[in-house]
Amino acid sequence: MRDGRSTPRAVVLLSGGLDSGTALACAIARDGCAAHCLSVRYGQRHLREIEAARRVAEHLGAAEHRVIDLDLSRFGGSALIAADEPVPRDRPLDDTEIPRTYVPGRNLIFLSLAAAWAEVLGAGRIYAGLTAVDYSGYPDCRPEFVAAFQAAAEQALAAVVEGRQRLAVITPLIDLGKAEIIRLGLSLGVDYGLTHSCYDPVGEQGLACGHCDACRHRLKGFEEAGVEDPVKYA
Amino acid sequence: MRDGRSTPRAVVLLSGGLDSGTALACAIARDGCAAHCLSVRYGQRHLREIEAARRVAEHLGAAEHRVIDLDLSRFGGSALIAADEPVPRDRPLDDTEIPRTYVPGRNLIFLSLAAAWAEVLGAGRIYAGLTAVDYSGYPDCRPEFVAAFQAAAEQALAAVVEGRQRLAVITPLIDLGKAEIIRLGLSLGVDYGLTHSCYDPVGEQGLACGHCDACRHRLKGFEEAGVEDPVKYA
Repeated sequence: MRDGRSTPRAVVLLSGGLDSGTALACAIARDGCAAHCLSVRYGQRHLREIEAARRVAEHLGAAEHRVIDLDLSRFGGSALIAADEPVPRDRPLDDTEIPRTYVPGRNLIFLSLAAAWAEVLGAGRIYAGLTAVDYSGYPDCRPEFVAAFQAAAEQALAAVVEGRQRLAVITPLIDLGKAEIIRLGLSLGVDYGLTHSCYDPVGEQGLACGHCDACRHRLKGFEEAGVEDPVKYA
Repeated sequence: MRDGRSTPRAVVLLSGGLDSGTALACAIARDGCAAHCLSVRYGQRHLREIEAARRVAEHLGAAEHRVIDLDLSRFGGSALIAADEPVPRDRPLDDTEIPRTYVPGRNLIFLSLAAAWAEVLGAGRIYAGLTAVDYSGYPDCRPEFVAAFQAAAEQALAAVVEGRQRLAVITPLIDLGKAEIIRLGLSLGVDYGLTHSCYDPVGEQGLACGHCDACRHRLKGFEEAGVEDPVKYA
């Protein structure tokens, strides 16, 4: 845990997955921030990731970890928040169609929550593990979105508008492939055995399914990095 | 209630106050939309406004009214969501300082929720009763913020990025003073007796206090419009 006047504060969006865990390590171990982690219980079927987020935050020495409830299944529109819609399995990873696991507005909403908390904390940075390389084509993971979001947040927050605070949305992984992300994370001390990526965990132990987009990008990344994935698959 | 293929769908942010009720009337009575209203229980001390929102939505013939829970008091930073901090009373209405009733990120978050729901509904419009004239100087009520938010939402939502849907954030009141808003609303059939504006309602009946910024802007608006405010004051 870091603190003190000279330590920059950051809000870190932490899902519990591989990417956000690596972004957290960038905030703390690489950039020297005091990290205030935010996870959202949004009705996701893989709620297990919240427990993973708690473990990752503790392991990497976050200043705190807060979980907020916002039930996006009230809006629907995604297989990730609908109990009755199957998660796509074994989809070609180069498929350009946006899959049904896309959650409308998710990163817009999550970054907005992070921005609100950042203003209250006086934190000048938000870290998010978005990546636009080995991903599922979600539009809210692209750098164009991140830049537009930052511009909107700069107009929204009193402390930024009045020049008392800056707000930078930092996406350290956005140009990295999954293997590069894994190598970066390992160099910064991430224990990927604590993370959870699978959209559709299996059985009481919540083992990774190995067939959803999240599992397949992850497995391909570990394979390309020449490292064994420490999590268990069904 | 309107519906049908030729009726444009809109998500309307509805707080239960004077402005958002007028914006809803613009969406339905002026612009012919099917209005899907969204209210947020965000930990506001004047939770009574949610019941007012329900009444206003019903009276104006909204297609539906949905209430979502998101406890922003978890972040703090505002007198509006803190039970132990008093709401400022009798503040000069021309004070340029942003008051403690400002809720960090509120409109950024609420518009993000509206955008997410709009994508699921296939709604091409969001209405919000923001006004930058007789207001408390909240930065997220300014047209600069609205334009920046729309640009961010256009990059976030798959349906918009792929050209299947447009998304316009419509703020019909942004350039109007409170008296003009009241005259517009009356011409469109708003019953302001159903609305609730007060930040700090008094007693079991929840009467308007008459001293918070919201009450004072409202009272001044009715006075300038030459109309009696139908709500009861303590």
